[in-house]
This record gives sequence, C-alpha cells and structure tokens, in this order.
Amino acid sequence: MTEYDAPLRDMQFVIEELVGLSEVAALPGHEDLTSDTVRAILEEAAKFGREVLSPINRSGDIEGSRLENGVVVTPKGFKEAYKAYVDGGWNTLQFEPELGGQGLPMLVSTPVFEMWDSANLGFALCPVLSIAGAEMLEKYGTDEQKEKWIPKLVSGEWTGTMVLTEPGAGSDVGALKTRAVPEGNHYRISGQKIFTTWGEHDFTENIVHMVLARTPDAPPGTRGISLFIVPKFMVNDDGTLGPRNDLRPVSLEHKLGIHASPTCVMQFGENEGAIGYLVGEECRGMQYMFSMMNNARLAVGREGVGIATRAYQQAASYARERIQGRDAVNPGAGQVAIIRHPDVRRNLMTMRTLTEAARALGYYVAAQLDVARKHPDAETRAQAQARVDLLVPVVKAWSTDCGVTVASIGVQVHGGAGFIEETGAAQHYRDSRITPIYEGTNGIQAIDLVTRKIIGDGGQSVALLIEEMADTEIPDSRIEAPFLQTLADLKQATSYFVDPPTDDPRAALAGATPYLTALGTITGCWLMARSAAIASDKLANGAGDDAPFYEAKITSARFYADTFCPQASASLATAMSGSADLMALADEAF
Amino acid sequence: MTEYDAPLRDMQFVIEELVGLSEVAALPGHEDLTSDTVRAILEEAAKFGREVLSPINRSGDIEGSRLENGVVVTPKGFKEAYKAYVDGGWNTLQFEPELGGQGLPMLVSTPVFEMWDSANLGFALCPVLSIAGAEMLEKYGTDEQKEKWIPKLVSGEWTGTMVLTEPGAGSDVGALKTRAVPEGNHYRISGQKIFTTWGEHDFTENIVHMVLARTPDAPPGTRGISLFIVPKFMVNDDGTLGPRNDLRPVSLEHKLGIHASPTCVMQFGENEGAIGYLVGEECRGMQYMFSMMNNARLAVGREGVGIATRAYQQAASYARERIQGRDAVNPGAGQVAIIRHPDVRRNLMTMRTLTEAARALGYYVAAQLDVARKHPDAETRAQAQARVDLLVPVVKAWSTDCGVTVASIGVQVHGGAGFIEETGAAQHYRDSRITPIYEGTNGIQAIDLVTRKIIGDGGQSVALLIEEMADTEIPDSRIEAPFLQTLADLKQATSYFVDPPTDDPRAALAGATPYLTALGTITGCWLMARSAAIASDKLANGAGDDAPFYEAKITSARFYADTFCPQASASLATAMSGSADLMALADEAF
Repeated sequence: MTEYDAPLRDMQFVIEELVGLSEVAALPGHEDLTSDTVRAILEEAAKFGREVLSPINRSGDIEGSRLENGVVVTPKGFKEAYKAYVDGGWNTLQFEPELGGQGLPMLVSTPVFEMWDSANLGFALCPVLSIAGAEMLEKYGTDEQKEKWIPKLVSGEWTGTMVLTEPGAGSDVGALKTRAVPEGNHYRISGQKIFTTWGEHDFTENIVHMVLARTPDAPPGTRGISLFIVPKFMVNDDGTLGPRNDLRPVSLEHKLGIHASPTCVMQFGENEGAIGYLVGEECRGMQYMFSMMNNARLAVGREGVGIATRAYQQAASYARERIQGRDAVNPGAGQVAIIRHPDVRRNLMTMRTLTEAARALGYYVAAQLDVARKHPDAETRAQAQARVDLLVPVVKAWSTDCGVTVASIGVQVHGGAGFIEETGAAQHYRDSRITPIYEGTNGIQAIDLVTRKIIGDGGQSVALLIEEMADTEIPDSRIEAPFLQTLADLKQATSYFVDPPTDDPRAALAGATPYLTALGTITGCWLMARSAAIASDKLANGAGDDAPFYEAKITSARFYADTFCPQASASLATAMSGSADLMALADEAF
Repeated sequence: MTEYDAPLRDMQFVIEELVGLSEVAALPGHEDLTSDTVRAILEEAAKFGREVLSPINRSGDIEGSRLENGVVVTPKGFKEAYKAYVDGGWNTLQFEPELGGQGLPMLVSTPVFEMWDSANLGFALCPVLSIAGAEMLEKYGTDEQKEKWIPKLVSGEWTGTMVLTEPGAGSDVGALKTRAVPEGNHYRISGQKIFTTWGEHDFTENIVHMVLARTPDAPPGTRGISLFIVPKFMVNDDGTLGPRNDLRPVSLEHKLGIHASPTCVMQFGENEGAIGYLVGEECRGMQYMFSMMNNARLAVGREGVGIATRAYQQAASYARERIQGRDAVNPGAGQVAIIRHPDVRRNLMTMRTLTEAARALGYYVAAQLDVARKHPDAETRAQAQARVDLLVPVVKAWSTDCGVTVASIGVQVHGGAGFIEETGAAQHYRDSRITPIYEGTNGIQAIDLVTRKIIGDGGQSVALLIEEMADTEIPDSRIEAPFLQTLADLKQATSYFVDPPTDDPRAALAGATPYLTALGTITGCWLMARSAAIASDKLANGAGDDAPFYEAKITSARFYADTFCPQASASLATAMSGSADLMALADEAF
C-alpha cells in the first residue's frame, strides 16, 4: 500500500499558472497572499496528510466506527488525528479573521481540503460539515446565535452536522416529516433522520446538528421546511455545557465504503422533544440549505479529485514496481515493470489526465467563487457568480464520475492484487462510490444543470462560457482540432435544450446526464489545452529542471483531447436523442 | 433485496429466435434437442437458482469462507446447496453421455450457468473449475487417468481446481517456479501457489488440483511448464481414498467481493513433496491449459452477463417501488415511483440494453462453438472455430466491463440506499470487479485480440465478420444509420492494425483496449439490430400477448444504437492514436 503524497507541483501549477493566484491575491482582503505563503501552507498540509491522516486510512477502513451503548467509538488514532487537526488550526483556514479564521481564499483552501480527501476521506467528511454549518450561521443566524455557535465550529472545538434525509425523503427533501413545535424561545423537535454523516462521535464534547423540520400548519413540500440548531448538549450562557438534549444515534449504517465515517440513524425527541433554535425565519429552511449547497457540491466534486489522486498514486507506484512480462520493443532484455507496457500506460494516462482535468476545473471554479465574493466591481462579481452557478453541478457530478472511473481502473492496474483488500486499491473503489450519490445524486445535478442553469437563463451563461472557450488560442493543432469539433457539438446540443424541438419536458430531462458529462469533459479539455499552451511558453523560454513537468503537461493534454473529445461528442449526440425510447416501456417490463 | 428471477423470456428469445436453436439441434448428437426440452431445463434451472442459490448469496457474502485449523468452512447453506446441485445432476449438463453427462450443447448450458452466476457468483465458481478440469483430462489424459478422475469430476462428487498463479507469475505464467521432480510413475511437486479459487472446502471428500509446475532442466518460460494432477487425497485403485497428499491451504485472501468463494494460498510439498501425475507430455502444460482457455474465458464473460442481470433486476425492482418526486408531465398527480423519471430510465435502459447485448453475444459465440465441435462439414467447423477464436477475448473483456458498468449504475439507481450493504446492490458492484481481472486481465484479452486474432491472420477473420454484419438487412433506419457509420469506422481501424502506419509494435498494443471495446459494442449492436428485425416480423404477424416483449426489443435496439454506436466510433478514433503519447513520460513522472 502506498501512502499519500500530495501532488504539490501540479497543485501549484494550477493555482499559480493556470487559474492565476495573482488575480485572487488582488481581491480585497487577500493582499498578503503571496506565492511563498501559499506554498508554505500547501507543504505543511501535505505533511499533515502524509504523516497523520494517510497512515490511518486503511486501519480506519478495517476497524470502522461502531456504536457501543449509545456512544460512537471511532477507529484507533482518529480522535488523536482530529485533535492534531484542530491544534494545527486547519479547520479555520477559509473563515474570515473576525470569525477566528485565517481568511484564505477558496483557491487555496480547496487544494488543502483535497489533501484530506485523498489522505483519508472518512476523516475528512467530519470537518467539512462543521465548516458548512458555521458558514450558514454566519449568513442567517442572529447575533446571539453567531456568538454562541460559530467560534467553536470554526476552531473545530465542536463539530457540526447536516440533518436532512428521512426514510421517505431523500432527493425529494420536501417530503420530510420531522416535526418542530414552538415552545417559548425554542422549538421541540421530534422525528427520525437517516444518513447523518458524523452524527455522533468521540472527537469533541459537543455536536451541533443543523436539522430540517416542519412546523405545525406549515405548507406541504419544500415551502414548509424550517432549519434548526439542535445541539447534542445544551449550552449555558457562559459557554459551559448544560444537560444532554433529547436526541441519540439509534444505529450506524453498514456501508460499502468510508467505514471510518459513522453514518447515523438519529432519533430526535423520544421523550420531551429535542430543543432546537430556529435559524432565520420559519419555512425558509430550504433556502438556507440551498445557499450552502454550492459549497457543499464543490466539496464533493473535490472529493472525486481527492480519491482519484490517491488511486492514481497507488496504481502508478504498483506499476513501477511490479515486474511482469517483457518490453515490446526490446523483448530480449528480460522482464520489465508493467509500467513499460502500452496498455498499462493507457490506464495510467487515463487516470492521470482525468484527475488533472477535474482538479483544474475544481480550482478554476473555486477562484471564480473567490471573485464572486470579494471583487470590488459588482458586475464582475455577478459574472463570476453566474459562472460558478453554471459549473457547480458539473464539478460535483463529472468529477465524482471521474473519481469512480479512476478508482476502478486503479484496481485493474493491480491485476489480481487489486481485488485483495490489503493492497489498498479496493478501498478507493469502495470509498469513491458514495461521491456520485450524496449531496444530490449526479442525476439530480444534471437536471439542475439543464433545467435551471441552461434552460433557466435561456442558455446565456453557457453561451458566454462557450464563447470564451472558442476565443482561447490553442497553439497545438493536435489539441485544437478535436477540441473545436466537440465545442461545435456542444453549441448544437445546447440549442437543443434552449430551443427544443418538442414541448415534452421529459426530453430535456432525458438528455441531462450525457450533456453534463460532455460539458465536464469539454471544460476539462479547455483547461488542459490552456495548460499545454502555458507549458509551451515555459519550455520555449527554458524551463530548466521543470522541463519534464511542462513536457508532461503537453503530452497529457494531447492524450486527453485524443481520448475524451470524441467521447464528449458521442455523449452530446445521445443528449439530443429525446425521451421517447426511454419512456416507451411499461414499468412492469423492466 | 430482490431475489434472482431468471430472465427466461429473453434467454429463450436469444436461443430460439436470434441465435437459432434449430441450427444447433441439427448437429450430430443433438437430434433430440427440442424447444420443449430446452424450456423445461431452463425452467428447472431457474427454480434452482431462485430457490436454492439466490437466498444464500447475501449471507454467503457476509459470512464468507474461513480457514480454521487447515480446514475451509464454507458459509451456512453452501454445503447443502452443493449437494442439491450434484443430486440434481446440474454438473453433468454439457458432458457427453459416455462420460456420464447429458450431452447438452453450449447454447443450452451457457444460459443455465448464467443463472448460477446471477444467483450466486461465489458458489458458481466452484463447479466451473471442476468442469474445466474434466474437459482437459478428456482431451489430454491417459485412459487410466480418464477412468480414475473424470467420472467424479463430471458428477461433482469431487471438485477440481486450476492452480497456476504464483506471487511472481501472474499474467506472465511462464515465470512460475513450482518444481516437479520425477519419482517412479509420478512426480513430487513443491512450491507456493496463490489465487487458487475453491482450492480447499468442505463440499466434497476429495479435490483434484490441476497444477502447473516446472520439471528439472526444463527450458525457461512457458515452454518449460508441465501440467499435473495433484489430488488432495490419494486415490486407491479401487476408487477409495488413500492418505492425504502433501499440500494444504496456508491462508485465504481477504477480497473485495465473492467472499463465499475461498481464494487460497496453497502450499505444495512442505514435507516429502506432493505426489502429482503428469498430464500428456512434459513441457506442454501451457498448451493444455490454453486449450481450456477459450471455454474458461467464455465462462467469465458469462459471469459478466450474470452479474449485470442480477444488478439490473435489483435496480429495476427498487425503481418501481421507491416513491420520490413528481412526474414531469403531470406534476399535480402526487409522488411517483422513480422509474417514471427520465434520468432513472436512462440508467435502467443502459443497464438493460448492455446486458441484453452481452447476453446475445455470449450465446451467439456458444452456438458457434457447438458448430465448431460437431458440424459434419470440416470447412463449416473451421469457419465457426475462427469466429469463436476471434470473439472469445471480446466476450471475456467487453461483457465483464459491461458487468462492472451495470453494477455501478445499479448502485446509483438506489441513491443513498445503494451504498448500504443491506440493500444488496453494493455486493454486485464488489463481486463484478473480479471478472475483468481473472482468467487473463481485460488488457491481456485486448492484446490477444489485436495481435493474434487480428494482425495474426492479416485481418481475415474480422473482415468476414464485418462483411457479414454489413450484409445484414436492418429494416429500422434509426438503427441502421448509426450502425453503418460505426461499421465503417471499424473497417478503418482494422486496417490501421493490419497495415500499420508505423513499425513500432507498441502502436497496436496501445490501441488494443479501445479497439476491443468498440468491437464488442458493434457486435452487440449487430445482434440487437437483428433482434429488432425479428421482433418487427413477429409484430407484423400478430404477436398477441408477446407484443410488449417484441416492442421492447425494438426500443432496446434503438436506444442501444443511439447511445453506444457514437461511443464505439469514439473508441475507434482513440484506437488509432498510436503509442507516442502513452510512452512519452518517464516512468518516474507518473
């Protein structure tokens, strides 16, 4: 098994040369952000990932979290790792200084969190939820709520959760039934929730649950849902912990992967009802949740990149070491490492380039989000926000599909050893499989993309993106030709959605997934092509020791264009095939 | 969790209407084979799969086989299931009557074994190995060996194994080191073997290992390998069991899937050396093993279909039952089952049509194998054998890739529930992952296809297949257009391999996998198109209650052509991209 080693060179390239750290550093509040600072942070994070989180990834998978007498016991070493994480200040990275944070832009916090995802996905899910909770309270909480809950969520002294799903309310959150009855300055919450990630654990003294529930007489569906802060232990005015609240984990799910992360069935209000504090106004809970969703979806897309990176490193290391077979060009020279075989190379290059493209796309959107938040010009902020809104579902769905694909190829590169759990490749195959599912399945992402982000604005946002891509100078004809072809196909498919040949609403829904896949592939190609152009310039000016890195960037972009542009065009053809065949069979015929 | 229910209607369609039972029934020795007989056999087998094997699939996964004091204890119910399997005569299906078999053609035994694969893959692996061993002895054993070992392997009273792999000898079998030293009328075998499927168990009194080993002074590589019968217990001349042979399972692998199947590390000859009997001549072991490989590879391809079917049934059943969201056309009508959503339909249709196409291809090749074995005309036999040889690697690799894809989509259809092991979908995702690996990785299959089967005969076999496909009348223009396009692309890519633009042998190796994927997709499309044509005829003549089945065949073929033909063309473009990019990076750059 290979320990994780952060791909610092590629991360720095994307941050500094491709996406442009300078643009983000020019934003108000980020003036102190230098290339040196960023490198120092990434190097420290890499060390923490390699030395603290990675070594307990496999043992955490084997041991898993378990529920014993109402208490969740996390795998050996996890509690200590969480303490080291908090002590290192890692949880505070992206919060504003006035909240106790370090005020780093998403462009920098994204690669850092990617490292946690690579090193130990089960662990990494815990802080992500605390951060999401703090960000939401910052936006919608009262001053008193902010003061009481945010500092400890930012520091990591307490953790947060998102409590949405119920047995009958998954993708359709509006169907949830958990009740919230007002009582004085609080509410009494009762109901059962499932799939609560890190809903209970032994890391911290308190856990702050963000719970969706329905108030009496609230309208049905998503318009009747409110959001509540429901702590595990009540908190006194002086900040000390009070009595235990009326909630408990009933059981943990037995999952395919991310075993270290306890996925809880939570029972609220078995006795007098759990005390919960309303966030914002009644019946606006979904809106508050949605406001966090962009970040949460970008985070899951990032997990796809993280797992892909880990699987790629594992496979590449194995392929370099595993001696088997002879070289095709020089068969007399004895046995060689399997990395010399072209078919194994194809697997590795596929893994490598999908990972690089998905990373580039994720960081690009992170930087756009930084601009959307902080740029002094309102028009620039709005444009960046539109780009973010358009690409969030793509980052979430395409990057996680890439993660699963890469993890599966990673198993394959190992041959029989890949199927043996001790090797480590199988864990990535299992762990990765959750990412296309949670935080809105990839099908939901595709529908969001096509209905809200494409049809919703008459295709304007995507037209701007296509225009920008078409205007990009691509000096390498081997990349340019397939890229321009697939761009033309994208334009045509977009027209199909914006100006459909049918008034059946199912046609757009039917084409959503292949359209999203193609859009991810093509934006990935755009960023790979730009990377190759930058690399060309560097090489022309004498790249010194960095020459192999830049040469590899050009090779990667060419391989990617050759391999994935035709596939994107194929997906776009499928995206326009309508819903008639899909809906033709009777339900019973399946 | 859904129990397995054999897709009898589709199986019968492929056997009788698409591939043509009548052609196989006309072969010498199969004269008694009527449609009624075949249906009766399939129905009995379906019952056995549903009632005996399917119910212990999930419990077998949870419990797994375990090694206790040198003895492998199989999961609860497995020993009884194996006894019922033997008592039912299921092991004897495809053997000639003179060997104690029922003399059924591959066209009939293939669907029966597919049922075992669907119902319980871990279980099904055991008899497959016994059958392979018996078939090899039938070809290459002495009369004495045949008499001693074959009847009990045919009946299933004993089981057989294939013992090839060693830690340093996987895909490169020629690197193996296990020694065989002659001693009187036998050899003494010593060495360690890994990945021995069902190498030890509690099903039967004896186990007959077929072991590859190296005799003293044998030449290096595959030319120095001999094959030996090495029984767990010695067998006296009167057929009773003698003393235990010098071999034992050292440990079982902890695997990603097929937990019920014990994958053994086997130690031979820790003391005086295990007694083994030479099969055929010294140093011809690889040739004997290769002779079985066609069947073994077809069997693994069939496993891909089996797992895909099971995953599809599980997902379809869940999609019909899971109520979530509203209908796009009629949103006011309340919540609907998710099978009404076009995006879920796309997932189900993808699963369904890949499974149908892979099944059709597998049965088609099985029937060709029947013709190759029994047709009275030597020329016809040779033609059929050439078609089999060409398509065996395609069936193995493409069908198992389909199996993994379908199983992964199956998880996705379930949403969050798919990630929970209790649901059952995750087991298929785990179990399926071994099939692209064992019996020659799919990369090895692709190399076999391109180097031996395409380049090796100057492209003749595939040219005949392409010609036959091009000559097929496809009355449905929606299928014909994409099919003909992709066929033209196949022709062009084939020329690239047969008459390459470069003398670098790595170019063909680099394009092997995408070429194989395309060839599988296209032959699958051909059989789907023919199915649609047959269905059209039936409907034109009044299909009665069968109308929905035939209509679905047409819909499936159209969906398949729309979705997968463009992808096949994309793969073919990639297949011709050469090896320069693949080999450009230094090994250390990965």
